[in-house]
Amino acid sequence: MSIEDERLKQQFAFALEADKEKQIFRQTWLSDGERKENDAEHAWHMALMAILMAEHANEKIDILKTVTMILIHDIVEIDAGDTYAYDEEGKRNQKEREAEAARRLYGLLPEDQGQYLKSLFEEFEEGKTPEARFAHTMDNIQPMMLNVAADGKAWTEHKIKVSQVLKRNEHTGEGSERIWEYAKENYILPSLEDGCLADDRKDKNQELP
Amino acid sequence: MSIEDERLKQQFAFALEADKEKQIFRQTWLSDGERKENDAEHAWHMALMAILMAEHANEKIDILKTVTMILIHDIVEIDAGDTYAYDEEGKRNQKEREAEAARRLYGLLPEDQGQYLKSLFEEFEEGKTPEARFAHTMDNIQPMMLNVAADGKAWTEHKIKVSQVLKRNEHTGEGSERIWEYAKENYILPSLEDGCLADDRKDKNQELP
Repeated sequence: MSIEDERLKQQFAFALEADKEKQIFRQTWLSDGERKENDAEHAWHMALMAILMAEHANEKIDILKTVTMILIHDIVEIDAGDTYAYDEEGKRNQKEREAEAARRLYGLLPEDQGQYLKSLFEEFEEGKTPEARFAHTMDNIQPMMLNVAADGKAWTEHKIKVSQVLKRNEHTGEGSERIWEYAKENYILPSLEDGCLADDRKDKNQELP
Repeated sequence: MSIEDERLKQQFAFALEADKEKQIFRQTWLSDGERKENDAEHAWHMALMAILMAEHANEKIDILKTVTMILIHDIVEIDAGDTYAYDEEGKRNQKEREAEAARRLYGLLPEDQGQYLKSLFEEFEEGKTPEARFAHTMDNIQPMMLNVAADGKAWTEHKIKVSQVLKRNEHTGEGSERIWEYAKENYILPSLEDGCLADDRKDKNQELP
């Protein structure tokens, strides 16, 4: 078998394994509130949004790198499962479970590609480059957009408080200040007003950070 | 409202509408055969495969352009519905239905972005550039990979014949000869042997084109 055919075989092995990401369901409801979405749908949606909204990034980003990072950022959940953003218990050993999953899954690929995707995943997790920061902005905004469209179902279901949303989003503005302002005005404040989001601020008139 | 905020508002309107693509179900079963996949999952899977397999394209391709094309290639089905590759009846007015859908959906975006995505969709449909050819290769190969993993369920369900698969794939090799050879050897020939794909060739020993 030629080197090219050997690489193709490994790429198909990874692609077939990646299919399982469609079975990892998240806590976000689709906009019509009929069912929850899965990781593959979430990644597709984020990637599309990143391409359209890249112009609002605080810093210039490499779009292909950002999109690649987004497309693969949840692959590890095939082995490690989804950890809900507000599940403090599950988040404790999340890093270890996901690192082990990254070794197995990216190990299916030709070595150079496996290492590249694994490094992109780690870069995303660290969240320190312009691409990783913007990918996190998309990762936080896409479910918020859907949640509001679905009448705040995910937040009411889990009795989420505004302090939790603000903590979850403490870095969202680092990817795009403009998108974070949009989210506060169009998603968070209206959700406080209609009661979908519990208001645990000491001073209800204080501005959102 | 600033021009940037106006653009962002339009981009979010499009992004929210795009969520409906997760409700357009295809004829392809997931690899475990438990349920069929939807357009958003299909696009995510194709985009990931395109990034990994771009090195096998017959001609050098612009990967970001190819991925963008892939991510949006089925958006029109939100209005026009999915037309199964082997549904000759539905394929008759498919072009008109999809053109009308493209006008409405891409019209939600800022004009420059809407026109760009609409032109990418048309380029995909025409299938004449290296990116469009490779995107079609992915569009044909991804469901074939899943179908074989799911024991040929989609083909047996619709009593598909090898002549139909070969006609459907008459341009697959134009995107990547190597991937098409892989598909014949690993997907089509084994499916003929195990009877998942009806063999309507006159000469059963003839090579696949």
